[in-house]
Amino acid sequence: MRKKNDDFLQQLTGLYHEKSLFLDPADCWSYGYDNSRRHKEPLAVVFPSSHQQIIDTVLLCNTHNIAITARGSGTGTTGASVPSNGAIILSTEKMDNIISIDPDNRMMIVEPGVTNQAIQQAAAEHGFFWPPDPTSASICTVGGNLAYNSAGPRAVKYGTPRENTLGLTCITGSGETLKTGANTTKSVVGYDLTRLIIGSEGTLAIISQATLKLTPLAESKRTLQATYDSIQAAANAIARIMAQPITPCALEFMDGTAISLVKEDAQLDLPDNAQALLMIEVDGDQFGLDAIADKVAASASVDGLIDIHIAHTAEQVKQLWSARKALSPSLRKVAPKKINEDVVVPVSYIPKLINGLQALSKHYQIPIVNFGHAGNGNIHVNLLVQLEQLDRAKECLAEVFELVIQLNGSLSGEHGIGLEKRDYINLELEATAIGIMKKIKAQFDPKNLLNPDKVFPIDA
Amino acid sequence: MRKKNDDFLQQLTGLYHEKSLFLDPADCWSYGYDNSRRHKEPLAVVFPSSHQQIIDTVLLCNTHNIAITARGSGTGTTGASVPSNGAIILSTEKMDNIISIDPDNRMMIVEPGVTNQAIQQAAAEHGFFWPPDPTSASICTVGGNLAYNSAGPRAVKYGTPRENTLGLTCITGSGETLKTGANTTKSVVGYDLTRLIIGSEGTLAIISQATLKLTPLAESKRTLQATYDSIQAAANAIARIMAQPITPCALEFMDGTAISLVKEDAQLDLPDNAQALLMIEVDGDQFGLDAIADKVAASASVDGLIDIHIAHTAEQVKQLWSARKALSPSLRKVAPKKINEDVVVPVSYIPKLINGLQALSKHYQIPIVNFGHAGNGNIHVNLLVQLEQLDRAKECLAEVFELVIQLNGSLSGEHGIGLEKRDYINLELEATAIGIMKKIKAQFDPKNLLNPDKVFPIDA
Repeated sequence: MRKKNDDFLQQLTGLYHEKSLFLDPADCWSYGYDNSRRHKEPLAVVFPSSHQQIIDTVLLCNTHNIAITARGSGTGTTGASVPSNGAIILSTEKMDNIISIDPDNRMMIVEPGVTNQAIQQAAAEHGFFWPPDPTSASICTVGGNLAYNSAGPRAVKYGTPRENTLGLTCITGSGETLKTGANTTKSVVGYDLTRLIIGSEGTLAIISQATLKLTPLAESKRTLQATYDSIQAAANAIARIMAQPITPCALEFMDGTAISLVKEDAQLDLPDNAQALLMIEVDGDQFGLDAIADKVAASASVDGLIDIHIAHTAEQVKQLWSARKALSPSLRKVAPKKINEDVVVPVSYIPKLINGLQALSKHYQIPIVNFGHAGNGNIHVNLLVQLEQLDRAKECLAEVFELVIQLNGSLSGEHGIGLEKRDYINLELEATAIGIMKKIKAQFDPKNLLNPDKVFPIDA
Repeated sequence: MRKKNDDFLQQLTGLYHEKSLFLDPADCWSYGYDNSRRHKEPLAVVFPSSHQQIIDTVLLCNTHNIAITARGSGTGTTGASVPSNGAIILSTEKMDNIISIDPDNRMMIVEPGVTNQAIQQAAAEHGFFWPPDPTSASICTVGGNLAYNSAGPRAVKYGTPRENTLGLTCITGSGETLKTGANTTKSVVGYDLTRLIIGSEGTLAIISQATLKLTPLAESKRTLQATYDSIQAAANAIARIMAQPITPCALEFMDGTAISLVKEDAQLDLPDNAQALLMIEVDGDQFGLDAIADKVAASASVDGLIDIHIAHTAEQVKQLWSARKALSPSLRKVAPKKINEDVVVPVSYIPKLINGLQALSKHYQIPIVNFGHAGNGNIHVNLLVQLEQLDRAKECLAEVFELVIQLNGSLSGEHGIGLEKRDYINLELEATAIGIMKKIKAQFDPKNLLNPDKVFPIDA
């Protein structure tokens, strides 16, 4: 492959300083995978430091018909940032400047390689935050957050990147500069290309700059933990919490299997009959927040409630979160392969989803641990698979997705489709929708060079 | 024209009951205009009552190359629902069913012809509301709200239709059924076609059904009115309010000209030196809301504040709003022709905008009255024009738009482009963006039958 591409690689060295270009397979190796554990060696890795350098790269790739997979920190779980066949990796990690912060206009302009954490820190200095908060916030980049529309617990109150981004500067597949959106929270001038590109997993354009909408940090927060003797009871509590006027800034869920796992592994003191656990946080003005926490606690107090605790000290907050925080490390220990999905169902269907998952777990003899962002109905479904069970797990997974669609749900809330779920997207989207999406891609990327073979089924 | 279209009209009568089809020019007349006061006679007016009937109509129009302009109540101000040349009007007013309300999942499914007010009433029975609240709420339809991304005062806290719609069912220009979005607040499965269609002014698809995201009604509200001796002082207050943690649910603005107008016309008791007025509302839990109102009042209390009032009774609320409510009737009296724009600038540029508008007003000798949604920087700019000044007003308007773009603003916050602003859209959007939008339209509507010649410049 390299021989065939000698001309291209030669010209690529003309675009990049030697420190910003990897050609040696040993250097390229670690840019071949993401958190899906898939791997494919890229043809080369480039580290542009400017918008213009991205344009030059895309134009060169057009001349030589070379695919481009853009990548932030590679924390995605679906393979969307694993290089497409014969593709170069375009890493945005050197484009990590915060270009401006404008607190008066609740606005921040950033390059795509800035980490989520760096954004939060810079915003916090002015009393603001950017709502999307994936677990990987300390290393994941805003470019990746935008590519996947990655959210996190706060989305239940504050929304996803689509609700928190004003505009983008990007480069289309044909190397044109495209500016989308506005510097204001309201604008209806032509079509909304900003949201179209957010969540498109690098298939429509490469983002070189984003204008983020900032939100003021709440003055204070209260943390509650509630345990229930059944999933149904917890689901009733979730529906009641979401139907009253105070929207929590986190409403996280763990099922009975998850509770058993952390009880055993982390020796946590949780009720023996707990089949579900909710972590609830409310934020707002310091004055009145205790009353608000009490009201939410009252909403959470349905038949089947075992216990509810409101933290009154930082130590208690930490203690209440300990079960949730212990979960990921515990999960890693139990099985060599963890299939982690992030399906979504309307909140009231959570019990049916969990019951269905329990039945599938029993049928396939694969432990399934469920937790996630209950307020959005976004449940992280974890199949704990032994290596010899991989085929069976695949069958089970297909049934999980079918169940989700039967329950009016969606295949992914914040992880995206990438390679992992492209064969299932037909379950959720009708042929007309997929057809029009592919036609839209062809307008942005006529030669199909931007992350080809991602998101859509290969032959659809 | 009618003769040429005899076949088409004959076949159209086969699709519609006689009560659902207007062919007589006298009947068609009143479907030829919207609130822009432009008028063009439609070829016919059809009133479909089902998704299938829309499909049949679109297919028939494809066969005969007849354009279609979809329309709700015709309250738009930009001519987007005035029939395109030779077009039929497809009125959604008979599709006015609320299909379902699902409070547990904060969701409501509606047909496009339901009025905004009917949605609010139905949602309120379950303790919810749908945030978009245009002034015309009592008669405007949700289909129109979606077509223009129409918002209103509450958008500052609760967002526009783009932030409050989960999915759509629609019919493309080639008569295909397209389902977009999900039944959940999080979903990243393929491209975001929902937001692409919202705000596209009937040029991409005809909406036959929408899944709205509901928000719980706040328990209580407090209303404040503040007056300032300069625009700059009010703008400082706006920036301070928007930089603190409590986001008001309304932050409305009137400039000195607007204040003078209502003082004179409605005999209102406002300070003589008031050059700006802010109406501020905060909502939330009853307990603690007085403290929150006090905090916001403190933020609003900048140098240049003349007076600030917090209403304590329903009567006082009404009294504080009286100046703002008196404005529209007063405006109508002053000039036979009112050119009403809804430009947007970043909040901190409001003083520069108002100063620039005052200079233009003086130069062109045309009174300009400004008010609007200050928290979003969305200012309604009203040129009060005598009939003999129309040419001059057009020149002035072009300069208004240029000023807005210089201030990093946007031509329209919630009215859209339609016919009125299509010749100015180049000021805001670069050729690449317009080019890709037109290519996207061609994928949805290959024969360019859906509201052609709207939004984009005719020859661009």
